[in-house]
Amino acid sequence: MQTITTAAALRTVLSNQSGSVAFVPTMGALHDGHMALIAAAVASHDIVVASIFVNPTQFNESADLDAYPRTPEADADLLKAHGCNVLYLPEVKDVYPEGTGKSLTSTLGFGSLTARMEGANRPGHFDGVAQVVSRLLEIVQPDTLVMGQKDYQQVAVVRSMISQLGLRVELLVVPTVREVSGLAMSSRNRRLSIPETVAAAAINRHLSAVVAGLAAGWPARELEGMAFREIGTHPLLRPEYIEICDGDTLLPYQDGAPVREIVVATAVHCGPVRLIDNRLFAPSLAEEVNP
Amino acid sequence: MQTITTAAALRTVLSNQSGSVAFVPTMGALHDGHMALIAAAVASHDIVVASIFVNPTQFNESADLDAYPRTPEADADLLKAHGCNVLYLPEVKDVYPEGTGKSLTSTLGFGSLTARMEGANRPGHFDGVAQVVSRLLEIVQPDTLVMGQKDYQQVAVVRSMISQLGLRVELLVVPTVREVSGLAMSSRNRRLSIPETVAAAAINRHLSAVVAGLAAGWPARELEGMAFREIGTHPLLRPEYIEICDGDTLLPYQDGAPVREIVVATAVHCGPVRLIDNRLFAPSLAEEVNP
Repeated sequence: MQTITTAAALRTVLSNQSGSVAFVPTMGALHDGHMALIAAAVASHDIVVASIFVNPTQFNESADLDAYPRTPEADADLLKAHGCNVLYLPEVKDVYPEGTGKSLTSTLGFGSLTARMEGANRPGHFDGVAQVVSRLLEIVQPDTLVMGQKDYQQVAVVRSMISQLGLRVELLVVPTVREVSGLAMSSRNRRLSIPETVAAAAINRHLSAVVAGLAAGWPARELEGMAFREIGTHPLLRPEYIEICDGDTLLPYQDGAPVREIVVATAVHCGPVRLIDNRLFAPSLAEEVNP
Repeated sequence: MQTITTAAALRTVLSNQSGSVAFVPTMGALHDGHMALIAAAVASHDIVVASIFVNPTQFNESADLDAYPRTPEADADLLKAHGCNVLYLPEVKDVYPEGTGKSLTSTLGFGSLTARMEGANRPGHFDGVAQVVSRLLEIVQPDTLVMGQKDYQQVAVVRSMISQLGLRVELLVVPTVREVSGLAMSSRNRRLSIPETVAAAAINRHLSAVVAGLAAGWPARELEGMAFREIGTHPLLRPEYIEICDGDTLLPYQDGAPVREIVVATAVHCGPVRLIDNRLFAPSLAEEVNP
């Protein structure tokens, strides 16, 4: 595996290679969830490029940016062991040579996709995500961009951005990887104490209950209300939202509506961190997607 | 497989055999659920005796007794094919030579086990069940009695009867077998129309939602209320009860109580029949039992 720190060097290396390129953008502190992205990339492409870049423009709280875990040596070892070919590890000035104020994506509109959930609760977050992903795609020029289902709303925003900018890149979305407890893997989990880790595992049980309720046809607003209230009864959890949305519009799902996919998404504060998670349900199949 | 119609002949046949005896009492109209009982019996015993006897004393509605499906030839073929050794196929007078009024079990008390659910909704039903099972055990004298989890309350009553009478017989309980749709197998399913069969499959989805809610710690009374109301919104279903009970006492489960097992049990009218079903949840494991 080659480690490269500048866009110019990366372009030189990649232009000397032939074959399909998959790109896995990350913020480091890698775990098995990221490795599932790498594995999906390796399985279907000739060259796998991963980036580790803690993008300052998508953090709406500087404390969260400062506290974001950084484990560069372990990350490089994991990527190499899982068959990644190129690690792009840039400085901020390499990604944003003209500063962070200028963005290809500043004129894009995401409509309902950013109106709720993370969009409502993390002002500027998705502008920063679109900015960094568009810039990284410009640098890497992959055939396929690989992202995780755990960041469902982020995937929706990036899909819209690709469409609006007319970029020629496939988007490959990989199911969420969970701990045995059901807790979705996240770099932020490293900051949880043991009791907090135990408490956080309840989040997925509440999502399971909501999905099972949807499968039985129980009303979406009542399920949201029950789950929100019951998550709030855990001494170590404080729910920010739990929403049952049309997976395509990210607007509230209306009972019985003929949508392709329902996403049940939540953000929950646990100790020092804010965790997000989601589960997907296909009403036409009456079945969970990627359970 | 031998087919025997009298208790006297059955005693003669069995007393000439050596080895362990498992007994599977049925009311005929056999399906894959019964075959799971036979398979469990065959796997662990030398001789498997099944009975087919539509016991009049456990039917509280004569219309239900009259309409109960009877498929004797197909039943015998199925039992033989699955390794049953002896089929006991008695007349009423062979089981009750002194009439149905006299019962070994008339002095037994089942306390809370028959206070609710089937006990409250089918007067006399469990007295009839205890009467026929005690009489059949007297005739067959098996080492093991094999019953299905689907009749959870019946199993609890029979377990109590065995204990109260001091009978030396093991009770083997076999998990419920379901159609692909999730509908619990039942002889009464044969009387459902196709739309009713589709509707009836929803029952298990409601039970799944309740179990998932219990796993998330949602309040039992609210889950019962939501499931009862939502089952009632199906045009072809009419719920009679849905109860979340302590599996040992069959009294209502109190949130957080340290019980061994929770049973979520329901009776639902669908077209011409009344269907029962249940699911088990072990709070100490936060996991479903026999999912």
